[in-house]
Amino acid sequence: MTQILSQISNPGDLQKLTATELDQLAKEIREVIIQTTSENGGHLAPNLGVVELTLALHLVFQSPKDKIIWDVGHQSYVHKLLTGRYNNFHTLRRYKGMAGFPKRSESEHDIFNTGHSSTSISAALGFAFARDLKKEEGAVIAVIGDGALTGGIALEALNHAGHAGNDMIVVLNDNEKSIADNVGAMSTYLSRIRTDPRYFRNKEEVEEIVRRIPSIGSHVLKVMEKMKDGFKHLVVPGILFEELGFSYLGPIDGHNLGQLREVMTNACRLKGPILVHVLTKKGKGYAPAETNPSVFHGVGPFDVETGKVKKNPGPPTYTQVFSDTLLRLAREDERIVGVTAAMPDGTGMTPFARAFPSRFFDVGIAEQHAVNMSAALALQGLRPVVAIYSTFLQRAYDQVFHDVCLQRAPVVFAIDRGGIVGDDGETHHGLFDIAFLRHIPELVMMAPKDENELQHMLHTALEYEGPVAVRYPRGTGVGVTLDEELTMVPIGKGELLRQGSDLTIVAIGAMVGIAEEAADLLEAEGIRAAVVNARFVKPLDKELIVKQARETGKIVTVEEHVLAGGFGSAILELLEMEGVHCSVRRIGIPDEYVQHGTVSVLREDYGLTASNVARVARELADTDRSWASIRKAPPAPIKIAFRGESR
Amino acid sequence: MTQILSQISNPGDLQKLTATELDQLAKEIREVIIQTTSENGGHLAPNLGVVELTLALHLVFQSPKDKIIWDVGHQSYVHKLLTGRYNNFHTLRRYKGMAGFPKRSESEHDIFNTGHSSTSISAALGFAFARDLKKEEGAVIAVIGDGALTGGIALEALNHAGHAGNDMIVVLNDNEKSIADNVGAMSTYLSRIRTDPRYFRNKEEVEEIVRRIPSIGSHVLKVMEKMKDGFKHLVVPGILFEELGFSYLGPIDGHNLGQLREVMTNACRLKGPILVHVLTKKGKGYAPAETNPSVFHGVGPFDVETGKVKKNPGPPTYTQVFSDTLLRLAREDERIVGVTAAMPDGTGMTPFARAFPSRFFDVGIAEQHAVNMSAALALQGLRPVVAIYSTFLQRAYDQVFHDVCLQRAPVVFAIDRGGIVGDDGETHHGLFDIAFLRHIPELVMMAPKDENELQHMLHTALEYEGPVAVRYPRGTGVGVTLDEELTMVPIGKGELLRQGSDLTIVAIGAMVGIAEEAADLLEAEGIRAAVVNARFVKPLDKELIVKQARETGKIVTVEEHVLAGGFGSAILELLEMEGVHCSVRRIGIPDEYVQHGTVSVLREDYGLTASNVARVARELADTDRSWASIRKAPPAPIKIAFRGESR
Repeated sequence: MTQILSQISNPGDLQKLTATELDQLAKEIREVIIQTTSENGGHLAPNLGVVELTLALHLVFQSPKDKIIWDVGHQSYVHKLLTGRYNNFHTLRRYKGMAGFPKRSESEHDIFNTGHSSTSISAALGFAFARDLKKEEGAVIAVIGDGALTGGIALEALNHAGHAGNDMIVVLNDNEKSIADNVGAMSTYLSRIRTDPRYFRNKEEVEEIVRRIPSIGSHVLKVMEKMKDGFKHLVVPGILFEELGFSYLGPIDGHNLGQLREVMTNACRLKGPILVHVLTKKGKGYAPAETNPSVFHGVGPFDVETGKVKKNPGPPTYTQVFSDTLLRLAREDERIVGVTAAMPDGTGMTPFARAFPSRFFDVGIAEQHAVNMSAALALQGLRPVVAIYSTFLQRAYDQVFHDVCLQRAPVVFAIDRGGIVGDDGETHHGLFDIAFLRHIPELVMMAPKDENELQHMLHTALEYEGPVAVRYPRGTGVGVTLDEELTMVPIGKGELLRQGSDLTIVAIGAMVGIAEEAADLLEAEGIRAAVVNARFVKPLDKELIVKQARETGKIVTVEEHVLAGGFGSAILELLEMEGVHCSVRRIGIPDEYVQHGTVSVLREDYGLTASNVARVARELADTDRSWASIRKAPPAPIKIAFRGESR
Repeated sequence: MTQILSQISNPGDLQKLTATELDQLAKEIREVIIQTTSENGGHLAPNLGVVELTLALHLVFQSPKDKIIWDVGHQSYVHKLLTGRYNNFHTLRRYKGMAGFPKRSESEHDIFNTGHSSTSISAALGFAFARDLKKEEGAVIAVIGDGALTGGIALEALNHAGHAGNDMIVVLNDNEKSIADNVGAMSTYLSRIRTDPRYFRNKEEVEEIVRRIPSIGSHVLKVMEKMKDGFKHLVVPGILFEELGFSYLGPIDGHNLGQLREVMTNACRLKGPILVHVLTKKGKGYAPAETNPSVFHGVGPFDVETGKVKKNPGPPTYTQVFSDTLLRLAREDERIVGVTAAMPDGTGMTPFARAFPSRFFDVGIAEQHAVNMSAALALQGLRPVVAIYSTFLQRAYDQVFHDVCLQRAPVVFAIDRGGIVGDDGETHHGLFDIAFLRHIPELVMMAPKDENELQHMLHTALEYEGPVAVRYPRGTGVGVTLDEELTMVPIGKGELLRQGSDLTIVAIGAMVGIAEEAADLLEAEGIRAAVVNARFVKPLDKELIVKQARETGKIVTVEEHVLAGGFGSAILELLEMEGVHCSVRRIGIPDEYVQHGTVSVLREDYGLTASNVARVARELADTDRSWASIRKAPPAPIKIAFRGESR
């Protein structure tokens, strides 16, 4: 089934293949990707869309001398298969297996790590500058989707690259999709190019026509001269890119390998920044993905035959509960508007969007704009809910700070995927949001212990007259009953879930359940641990925590988040400010990037389990020994290396 | 001298004035702004450039029903003078006086706070959406400079607005400058429009010519039809904006009030998003500022007659020492490249840029791209130094995280203006960098105690094989002698500056000097305080701090930074991780936005003084009383207000 693919150990091997063999290879690649993602999950549709494009790039360019940078990187499976990683491909996105994104540590052909969107043009320009400064050779190619092109950093880089003029190629992989349908004027512009048959007219043909126009007086002739410039608008559909300093080539059929090779070869010969506009179809070659590219964008295990996605049985996901609650609240409060940065499905916004299309704003992959615009909406009396993954909110840190909180604008941040996200790995974990948000004045930040609390918190957040962040994890809820009536969670009030005199476990969000389990384990041993559901990262429930600290003298904090600047750190600060002496042990993620793997395996790895919480609590209850001896996962040492030293 | 201006208590008063009186008013406004900024300092050149533009906006639109949003906001002085704030204008940028940027708390005419660049189009779109959703009336106008238009968030919003189609006006204030000369293809594009006389041709004239072209066969005729579209390229210079969904009007002389009024009135009548391209001259009407707009962009007190800026006598600034050291190191190490986001002067990069033009990259107001591109440069073996103000690095938080540190790219962040910056106020203080950086894995972060240490730290950072941030404050150094030879600062090693058995003051950066002064005060009372210059925020000098904690049992931390997640917080975490019992008192900024004022007054306000450090230390040494009773500036309470309740 993979007789050709299995023979490809590096991109150079492609040169030996005939056109027929290349077609066969494309088929094999699709089969392998469909098979593997059906088992491991993954970004199926984006990869099926770039099979021919990737083949063409590796046929024309010599990686790694020529630098190919994959924007976002979720479309790099084909690239991985062609660069010596076929044998390992079955470990895709698995714990300690191959990453779902390009990783420098994995291959010399992965020259720039990606994961977040819209960075490739900027990186490519950096590579081009470095090459030219060092007087080296080699092409630099950024492969970016039309969706990613709406990201501010991509536009910043496009603007800079067009001005700088260094040789580089931007391959615009136009599939009319980011993850959902694209938005934005640039998208409209591209689709105009796609759909207008005039743009496929032969350039020479039009120029011939112009030449044949007879002279009609000198005044008009002068105008005609200028019109030739104007003609660019007709014959060169990418005038917008041309005006920004790029030479535009396209549009090209992204599934015609011959045409792709020819155009890429031409692009190589041109000087300056080139934009190659390639039209592809997401999910190409697998009917269910072609029909539902959004579902198969990033997909869990599915049945290859039927295209049916395997659903985890069990309680609704946090996202689902958020989605239902938002819809319910929006029916009663017409001030509520929804904002997403190109993730209506992933964040659960789609039902709201369908019910209230005029109150729904998908701004494209543009987190900064999403947050800033929401500040303005809020200042006009609306109640924007920005539903966003924790990791992508990192893009809008300054807007949360400068535009929302500084003006105390009542924006609600529904922060999904707070915590370990699993298979997408180090670029995607939501393990930093408490640390990058809790120092921002005016912001209230909460995290529910279960999906029932989530709905009450969302309700509370929407009633509050200031900015609020609600952080919740990926995946299914705890399975508790959802209250019918929504009630207010008092701001800054946690709850004491269990009394106990030996020590107090203070947990936040999804860790509350684990803390309770730990307390059960401890109770069996005769250790009585109190358990606090903190609910609020900010403001902390000073009264409750101080009381517990004074009464039990020992606190264990648990958070699915980095320890540096995190929730436990806030508890330490509170105790310092209140002058309370209390032994504290914090459990959380040490100072390192967390790799990919399932949530449960990674939680186990980092000691975010009932047994480890119990172990730490037990040692704290027994003694006050040095933390260093009992911590399961010590902070990673900073690697110190200077020039010339080995690392 | 201000007989007309003094009569203007709100923009409506402008309607009564004749053209001659308006000219006189413009003159008066310029005089007042020149006079006031010559005393208080401020953004002189940007404001002189928008006198007529601001008059036109307030003549044509009815603020605050019509919403005028000032991008960046440093050009809002004229607006402030016309909206009832003339009498208070002498307090501009002074402690508890008028802010140098729009502030909602100051006037109903300031409808969106700004300070950081490039947010206005996004905000305007939010206001437009809100207006249309609520079926209200009123124009929405964003006034944005050509420099600010290179910011990613502005481009994200432009793309969205052009697609959304709601009525809004973007006034592009094109003065060919951001702060320094502009960069980017968009800038080149605009300057082409400015300089090409064809663009000032009458549109009707050209269309007449087209009509007169005789028929020349049906095939050609069809082409001609299409050419009419192409003609847009000739007669409508703003084709780039047109392609993005905006109606383009311009270019217009931004100092011709009559023309401005006419065009703005027309813009009002048009539907959908409009871009009005206005050409202005920075510093207009004050010769020294016209000649040196960069110097007079944001300027300290100066002599009005001569245009000479008053220099503070005293030691060189940190910026100056950074500038000199960078130049010196770059002469010896050709891997060093310099990167700035439109701030070559402010960050001290200009001498480097002059000496090594090919190794210098000004990317425009595009912090995200600056940082991401630097990661690529670093991965290719170069040593990029990104010189950036602390507050603007907030824009690139995700790039530091995702592109630099995740790949362990050896990028050096020279973070200027870390700490209180003074007159620019709450949007510009660099009080959050430790909190938003120290949780990022792989990053080393240091802060020098004086300008001599700064040069050694820069040297060390450039030798280190990983990402490093060096944070230093605004203003003059301590006045120490600069060592001739540059030496390496051992990574993660602080220094014990003074022995003392009663307690230890651990300070970082500019606070080290204050800690030493405090120790002097304490010594006079018989309290022996040890003083540690931490040097590193990350990694902390575990050995030294733990030793001091164990030996003295009491630690006071001092930082010019927010307490939440800051340096003192890191010390608390370290002691927790090491299981050390020690009484700690942290001194820093509480959980609130710090207003404008001089650095010394604000430091006094927040207890960042030797006498306050001594006071806290004294109380800690004497007793272990509750911190709450001795803290000078308690954390601001979170204001809790729900719908319907008064705030």
